[in-house]
Amino acid sequence: MQIIEKQSGEAFKLKKGQLLKVIDPQGKQVSDMVLFNTDDKREKISSGKTMDYEESILISKANYIWSNRSNKMMEILEDTNGRNDFLLAPCSPETFKIMYKNDKYHPSCFENLYTNLEKFDIEPDDIPTAFNIFMNVQFDKYGKISVKPPKTKAGDYILFEARMDLIVGLTACSAEDSNGGSFKPIHYEILD
Amino acid sequence: MQIIEKQSGEAFKLKKGQLLKVIDPQGKQVSDMVLFNTDDKREKISSGKTMDYEESILISKANYIWSNRSNKMMEILEDTNGRNDFLLAPCSPETFKIMYKNDKYHPSCFENLYTNLEKFDIEPDDIPTAFNIFMNVQFDKYGKISVKPPKTKAGDYILFEARMDLIVGLTACSAEDSNGGSFKPIHYEILD
Repeated sequence: MQIIEKQSGEAFKLKKGQLLKVIDPQGKQVSDMVLFNTDDKREKISSGKTMDYEESILISKANYIWSNRSNKMMEILEDTNGRNDFLLAPCSPETFKIMYKNDKYHPSCFENLYTNLEKFDIEPDDIPTAFNIFMNVQFDKYGKISVKPPKTKAGDYILFEARMDLIVGLTACSAEDSNGGSFKPIHYEILD
Repeated sequence: MQIIEKQSGEAFKLKKGQLLKVIDPQGKQVSDMVLFNTDDKREKISSGKTMDYEESILISKANYIWSNRSNKMMEILEDTNGRNDFLLAPCSPETFKIMYKNDKYHPSCFENLYTNLEKFDIEPDDIPTAFNIFMNVQFDKYGKISVKPPKTKAGDYILFEARMDLIVGLTACSAEDSNGGSFKPIHYEILD
């Protein structure tokens, strides 16, 4: 079991066929995930292709996560919470300036992704819209978006199977709105 | 007035402060648009950042289109139809294989974007999720997505103001589902 401390991130490799279990150990926390093809990092997770092929804004059990080149990157085998969102980009320093009116330094998923992915030669501009695990983004019929505290309970998890060799970036989210102001760790486990 | 013939595309530069008017001359047609910062093409249109900062899935008059670096790329000054979507990636050869079960060659917005953007040294993997002008993507409260024929009438238009120097890729959409099976041209005009 690996621990991602609150407001931090990790990056690691996952082999095709391996399983990744992402766990919310205390409940009400969000994890941002980005994926890259290990063999060619220009192939990466795509929110637009995933929502298109899965014909859904919400992505859960039995859905696939697709790349910008229309290949399956992961399959979701289990999802005990059932709400994950692919709408919003990872929180970044500018998120806190623009949306939170906070000009001071603030940790962010974007920083925690690119600093951890640097060892795989992935740069800030390479970071796409992330898969927002456990995130509770509500939308009305007019498309108005609001971010609510996650509905996860302690121990809720999502289980992915890698469909290609992957570089994975994963965070414990740093944004107050995403987790109801309670910064918490995220756990993960790689299973063969 | 510039004409984008049915199932084709164009790419051109737009200076900061210039206006771009995209017109549906016959009605019920969709146009995919991607944007790049002329001075650094690694800065590009971002669906995730736009939906985040505008707090909306639907993007229309008075909304901004944001970049992956959290800068405003365009402002929408007018929008006579009022429905544009930022959910789905441009249709690509794989879209027709996977969703339409069509293994033969089919024109696509993705091909029409990258072949036209090649002259600006933009490659296929650089193409992000596009802004889907006039596209009528419906979603229910469970997030289920369905693509309906556009509600545009002949002459409906959207007017953008460039907030930075831009390279613009623009198409007349090639996908049957997006335009009710009726492939039509798109017109555009650059105004100083």
